[in-house]
Amino acid sequence: MSPFQEDEFWMLEALKLADKASYNTAPNPSVGCIIVKNGECIGMGATRAVGGFHAEVCALIDSEKRNQNVTGSTFYVTLEPCSHYGRTPPCVDQIIKAAPARVVVSMIDPNPLVSGSGIKRLRSSGIEVLIGVCHKEALLLNIGFINRMLYSTPWVRLKSASSIDGRTALYNHKSKWITCEESRKDVHHWRARSSIILTGIGTILHDNPLLNVRYVDTSRQPYRAVIDDKFVISEDANIIDGSKVFIFTSIVDKEKEYRLAEKNVDVVLLPDEKVAGRVDLSLVMRWLSDKCFNEVHVEAGAGLNGRLLSGHCVDELVIYIAPIFLGDAFPIAKLQNISNLEDALRFSIFDNATIGSDLRIRIHKNSKWDYLFKKTSRII
Amino acid sequence: MSPFQEDEFWMLEALKLADKASYNTAPNPSVGCIIVKNGECIGMGATRAVGGFHAEVCALIDSEKRNQNVTGSTFYVTLEPCSHYGRTPPCVDQIIKAAPARVVVSMIDPNPLVSGSGIKRLRSSGIEVLIGVCHKEALLLNIGFINRMLYSTPWVRLKSASSIDGRTALYNHKSKWITCEESRKDVHHWRARSSIILTGIGTILHDNPLLNVRYVDTSRQPYRAVIDDKFVISEDANIIDGSKVFIFTSIVDKEKEYRLAEKNVDVVLLPDEKVAGRVDLSLVMRWLSDKCFNEVHVEAGAGLNGRLLSGHCVDELVIYIAPIFLGDAFPIAKLQNISNLEDALRFSIFDNATIGSDLRIRIHKNSKWDYLFKKTSRII
Repeated sequence: MSPFQEDEFWMLEALKLADKASYNTAPNPSVGCIIVKNGECIGMGATRAVGGFHAEVCALIDSEKRNQNVTGSTFYVTLEPCSHYGRTPPCVDQIIKAAPARVVVSMIDPNPLVSGSGIKRLRSSGIEVLIGVCHKEALLLNIGFINRMLYSTPWVRLKSASSIDGRTALYNHKSKWITCEESRKDVHHWRARSSIILTGIGTILHDNPLLNVRYVDTSRQPYRAVIDDKFVISEDANIIDGSKVFIFTSIVDKEKEYRLAEKNVDVVLLPDEKVAGRVDLSLVMRWLSDKCFNEVHVEAGAGLNGRLLSGHCVDELVIYIAPIFLGDAFPIAKLQNISNLEDALRFSIFDNATIGSDLRIRIHKNSKWDYLFKKTSRII
Repeated sequence: MSPFQEDEFWMLEALKLADKASYNTAPNPSVGCIIVKNGECIGMGATRAVGGFHAEVCALIDSEKRNQNVTGSTFYVTLEPCSHYGRTPPCVDQIIKAAPARVVVSMIDPNPLVSGSGIKRLRSSGIEVLIGVCHKEALLLNIGFINRMLYSTPWVRLKSASSIDGRTALYNHKSKWITCEESRKDVHHWRARSSIILTGIGTILHDNPLLNVRYVDTSRQPYRAVIDDKFVISEDANIIDGSKVFIFTSIVDKEKEYRLAEKNVDVVLLPDEKVAGRVDLSLVMRWLSDKCFNEVHVEAGAGLNGRLLSGHCVDELVIYIAPIFLGDAFPIAKLQNISNLEDALRFSIFDNATIGSDLRIRIHKNSKWDYLFKKTSRII
C-alpha cells in the first residue's frame, strides 16, 4: 500500500467505528478514532452517548488497556478533535499529551468553538496534521451536525417509498406495502441515525404509526414530532406512548395541552403569520436546530411532503422505488402546478443502491452540499 | 486465468463484436465469433447486414487473411451456429470443415430450424461443445429475436424520461427537456438497435418528432410506426419523410391511403373488435412479429403507454429519471385507477446506471425472462 492508500484504509476503518456509534451520539457528532503504529492498530474508539468520552479518549484508553505506547503513532480521526471544554475536557490536550507523530483528520469541525483551532493547537505542538482523507464519507456521516453549525437548521431527510410512476399509496389507503421487506427494514437505519422523526397529522389519522426504531440495534430512540396545524390529534394516537413527542400547531387549546403534557407530549405553538391555521415550517426547523436536533427524518404524506419541498426545507430525499405501476394514486408530494420547467424543484443524485427488489435513490441539493464541503475542507 | 475465466473472457470479446454489429443485422440476430488458439485470437467476425455472411464465416475468412490454421482451435460463438439453409449456407458445416477442437456457445438458438441441431451436429463430428458461457449477456443482446421465436411477438421496449415523481411533461407541453443531454443521446442507442420505433398519434400531433437515429453510428435506420386510431395524421408530419412508415389505424380512408402510399407510408387496418374506433394493439404486435420485427422501441405519451402496459404488450421499460420534481403533470402512463395493490403492474429491476445527472433504470417481466432463459439454456 502507498502512504496515501494506507491513510485511506485506516480512515475508512475509523469511519466504520463512527458509523456504528451514530445511532447513539445525538446531539454530538459521531466520531471514530484509530491509533496506528508500525502499520498496526494499537487503539480504537468512537464517540460514546452524550456526556461519555469522545472517540480520541476512548482510543487512548483502549491503547492503554493493550499496554501500547502511543508515542510516535498516527491518529486517524473522522472529525477535527475538539479544543474546548464542553461536557468533557478538550481532546487535543489528551492527544498532545500522548505525543503522536501525526494526526490525520477527515474534515474541519465547523463548530465555531473548534473550527480549525484544534488543528492549530496540534500543529503548534509539533504534530504533523493531514486534513481531507475520506472527507466526503465523513461529511455524510455527520451532515446534520455540520449543517446545524453552518445554517442553524437541522439536515432534513425526507424518506419516501414509491412506485416507478411516483405514487406512494392508493386513494383508498389499501396499499401496505408498495416496497419490499428489505427496503422497509432499511428505513429503520435512517430513522435510527436521525435525531427526530417528523410526520404530519394526515399520516397519524390514516396510518396511526408508532414511528419508532425497530430491526436495528440501538440504545437510543429518536424523538418524534407531528405537524398538526389544527391540533386535532387524538390523545390515544399510537405515537403518544409515553416517550417524548412534540406537536407543532397553530391552535391554542390549553386543556388539551395539559392533558397531553401528562403523557410526555410537548405542544409547540408556531403559527404561520401569513397563512391562518397553519404551522410555519421554517420556524419549526429553526426551533429544532435551537434544541440541538441534527438530523430530521421525515415520513409523511403528499401534503406535508409538498409543503416541506416547496418551502425549501428538505435537504435530502431517500426514495425507495418499487418496479411497479400504480397509475392514478397519491403522489410523493403535492406540489403546485408549474408552467415553466425552470420552476421545477431540482436535486442531484449522489447515491443509488439495489435494496431487495427495489432501488434506493438518494438525492440532495448540490449547492448546499458544495458549501458544506468547502467549509469543512480547510482552516479559514 | 482459469479455463472458466478464459472462456468468459473470450466470450465477452465475442459479445462486444456482436454488440457493435447489432444496429445493422435486423431481422437476423446479431452474433459475434472469435477463434482462439494457444491463448491468442486468430480470427474474429460478427453478423453482417441481411444476406451477408454470418459471424462464424466472417471469423473464418478473417483467420484465412491472417494465414492462421484453425485446426484444433476453440470457437467462441454468442449463439448456437445455424444448421439450415437460409439466405446463407449452414455455419455448422463450415465449422466442422475447419476442425476446431472445441466450440463454446452462449446459448441455444430457439429458432425451430436450429434449436439444438447445430450443437448435435458439432458433437457428432467429435467436436467438444460447451453451452452457457455469458448466457445472460447473450440473451439480452438478441432478446427480440429470441422472444419472437418463442412467443411470436416482438420484444417491446418502452422508453420513458421522467422526473423523480414520475412525470414526463408539463400539461402545457412546455417541458423540453426533463432529462439531461447524455440521457437523450443514450436513447439513440436503444432506437438504433430496435427493428422499429413506435409512437402514438398524440406525440405526432404535439411534438411532431422525426424518431430517427442520430448521435450513434449506424448504416441502418429502424422502421417507424404510428398508432393512429382515427387516422387523423397530417400528411405533412415530420415523420413522413420518404422512408418507410407504418400507420396502424381502425378507420378506412382509401384516398388518404393512396396519397400516403406515394410517400412510402403503409396503412395497416387492425381495428379492435371490442372497442369501436380503436386499434387492437395485440394484433399490431402479432403483425409486427409476422413481418420479422424483433425489437419494438416505443416512445409515446401517457395514453399509448397506458394502453400498451395495461394490455400486457410491454416486455421491458428503459426509464431515465431526472432528480427533479414536476408536481401535477403528465404521468409516464395513463392507467386505470386500481383499488387493490394486487392489481398493480409488476416488473423487476435488472439494470440501473448513472447517465449524466440522471439515473437509467431497466425493468422487465421476470417470468418471461426466466422462460426465455430456460428455453435457451439446453437442448430440449
